[in-house]
Amino acid sequence: MENRELLGYSGALLIRDTIVNGVRGDIFIDDTGTIAGSGEGIARKYHNDADVTIDGNGSIAMPGLVNTHTHAAMTLLRGYADDMVLQDWLAQKIWPLEAHLTGNDVYWGTKLACLEMIKSGTTAFNDMYFFMEDAARAVDETGIRAVLSYGFIDLNLPDKRENECRATERLVTSIKSMNNSRIRAAVGPHAIYTVSPDGLKWCADYAASEKIGIHIHLSETEKEVHDCISQHGKRPSSHLDDCGILTPSTVAAHCCWLDEHECALMGKRNVNISHNPASNMKLATHRAMPYQLLKSSGANVCLGTDGCASNNNLDMFEEVKTAALLQKFFWNDPTVLPAPEALAMAGSNGARALGTGTGTLAPGAPADIILVSTMTACNTPLHNQTSNLVYACSGASVHTTICNGCVLMHERHVLNEEEILRGSADAAVQLVRRSSS
Amino acid sequence: MENRELLGYSGALLIRDTIVNGVRGDIFIDDTGTIAGSGEGIARKYHNDADVTIDGNGSIAMPGLVNTHTHAAMTLLRGYADDMVLQDWLAQKIWPLEAHLTGNDVYWGTKLACLEMIKSGTTAFNDMYFFMEDAARAVDETGIRAVLSYGFIDLNLPDKRENECRATERLVTSIKSMNNSRIRAAVGPHAIYTVSPDGLKWCADYAASEKIGIHIHLSETEKEVHDCISQHGKRPSSHLDDCGILTPSTVAAHCCWLDEHECALMGKRNVNISHNPASNMKLATHRAMPYQLLKSSGANVCLGTDGCASNNNLDMFEEVKTAALLQKFFWNDPTVLPAPEALAMAGSNGARALGTGTGTLAPGAPADIILVSTMTACNTPLHNQTSNLVYACSGASVHTTICNGCVLMHERHVLNEEEILRGSADAAVQLVRRSSS
Repeated sequence: MENRELLGYSGALLIRDTIVNGVRGDIFIDDTGTIAGSGEGIARKYHNDADVTIDGNGSIAMPGLVNTHTHAAMTLLRGYADDMVLQDWLAQKIWPLEAHLTGNDVYWGTKLACLEMIKSGTTAFNDMYFFMEDAARAVDETGIRAVLSYGFIDLNLPDKRENECRATERLVTSIKSMNNSRIRAAVGPHAIYTVSPDGLKWCADYAASEKIGIHIHLSETEKEVHDCISQHGKRPSSHLDDCGILTPSTVAAHCCWLDEHECALMGKRNVNISHNPASNMKLATHRAMPYQLLKSSGANVCLGTDGCASNNNLDMFEEVKTAALLQKFFWNDPTVLPAPEALAMAGSNGARALGTGTGTLAPGAPADIILVSTMTACNTPLHNQTSNLVYACSGASVHTTICNGCVLMHERHVLNEEEILRGSADAAVQLVRRSSS
Repeated sequence: MENRELLGYSGALLIRDTIVNGVRGDIFIDDTGTIAGSGEGIARKYHNDADVTIDGNGSIAMPGLVNTHTHAAMTLLRGYADDMVLQDWLAQKIWPLEAHLTGNDVYWGTKLACLEMIKSGTTAFNDMYFFMEDAARAVDETGIRAVLSYGFIDLNLPDKRENECRATERLVTSIKSMNNSRIRAAVGPHAIYTVSPDGLKWCADYAASEKIGIHIHLSETEKEVHDCISQHGKRPSSHLDDCGILTPSTVAAHCCWLDEHECALMGKRNVNISHNPASNMKLATHRAMPYQLLKSSGANVCLGTDGCASNNNLDMFEEVKTAALLQKFFWNDPTVLPAPEALAMAGSNGARALGTGTGTLAPGAPADIILVSTMTACNTPLHNQTSNLVYACSGASVHTTICNGCVLMHERHVLNEEEILRGSADAAVQLVRRSSS
């Protein structure tokens, strides 16, 4: 089979000659998209069962990365406005443009996001935005995994709250009806400053009744903390806890300003924390998520890129490095967040947060696999594979991306790449045109 | 001419259909390696003069980036030790390994560094290390520009000082005898805590007499400031100034802990400042270079990656983004270091610091040009080219690298890439073996 013909292939697949958990070996994927065997001697054992073989050429095999907080369709706003104060940026640039968003825009923006993630080794993401049925269609077509939530914003208005509840229910019903194991719904209360306590409680109850996750922004800015204390007489995490939002299926994004008690609460409730270092730096939150406190509390600390309006890309390799650097710098200790922990945040911790498998290459795990080339400067020399992956490589060193056993990228080629780039670029131009006419 | 045959081509060259200073146009390079024309209509004007044409395919043309502070051969130590306290890291890992370094190691490490820079769009760098004649040989072969300095360290010992003076003179003589316009020498007093005042004064005098630059580390850590005050009764910049080190041809790296008076002094002396944000974050310097103060003082603020032991790559696109993010975060203002200023640090400011041309695409400038693909996710949409280059793209989006009119990379192919990767990987393995036997 020619290399380009591998794109879209889904079936029994043998990856030969790759580094698996530090040892030269192979991986066999069965026709259900599950890893049947991995490690030394696997090629010998399974060579009769494989319809198709990929030569790994000594590349590093690793589980696909998991982006636990993004707004995928905001790829359309990449570079539209930067270097501004948060409130001006939102009020003058982002919201006026978003007011003109259509389902078609979200479809193309999400397609572009999926393409970008496939090309940089991410196989699952946690999304919150609008027109999410269109986002689901884009995810379905591009072949990666996603947990999709509608951004629930009631602004303390009862009528609006009813509207948001119905929109949330519609999305959950719609996604369940797709019956696609790669795509799941979550409930997405936007944040404590945009959702009323009644809205938060409804979200918590509805998520529990539907047995789905919750996706929320938490303590991104110091202002959020101050406002919460003066409005509710408690810090944001306590407020969320009182509304039932803190659960083992909740992903709380940012968490820059959590204090010691809040970190302990996160551990106690087994909450998943999505660290978003690039976005926090760019928007100057002025405090880094307290990684050490959260880790020792037992919370599951993961990683996310946030949306492209505030990052401005979806490269989780870049985000891993930024996380490791920011934690060391802000907490004034070069031993904080060492490379193996940083990589786990982007991989197995994220998989646990989203429930998308083990985030390992062990037999029985879903075949969400990326191959990272070792014939590149970033992996030369190879004193320490984990160090190179965290500190030296970018997403561009990913050579092959497989999700659910399907080959989505090989030798850096992706199906319909040019069509997606042109379609999304066109949607972005039209969106800006509509908003300025 | 086939695309791969373009590699190493040096002669009259037309680049068609590229974005030059925001406008669709072309660039014509004459056979001296100089830009003869750039902008709209250039293809029409020069098409009879071009022996060879490159189709830019709508890519963004920009001046090659300039890395103003690195230790190139430390690519061999990439990933050898991370996540350690500075003193342990140096004393237990880096210095013991460096004690076994040979000229052959530096040759291969510098080759690897040049390859990595070519592949990520850097066409000139400022280097300080040992066995610099071997570094010069590597730079000569790979085709980019460098300013090379021997790391002068006398540890306050008169005998050692004599030795360092002679080593410095030998390197300068050797590089001048190469008569290669791409390679120049500088004087490299390592830092105030490793070089005596007499050593610093000798370096200043010798640099002036040879009309060459100075490359030094300055105020990387708070300890350096405290030690300097207790030893010399003044802050590091005043000490350097008293030794004659602060000149318009001096590049001072790091500068994290400069106070307001020191920033003013840097402006007054027209010193070039190399900001190294990734290294500073990784090693937890706990303070970011005071960009606003330095900028308003009139100092020339540039960018550098530092060596691969503390970064761990040489991707200046990544470094530009890290600089913009760190400045905003540390100084608590998202408007600090906006994208155009960040890009200038990595380009024209760096070119001015090293004296390697204008850092522009204007006629008369040396043809140090990179083409950045627009058919990539990071440049889709293209609302704002500068924003995308700073916040979204990595060095991997560079498609073509030209230095001094010679095509060093095209369609991401570089001459002898595999040989360089294998040779340097082998040198690194042998070095670790020697040091542990």
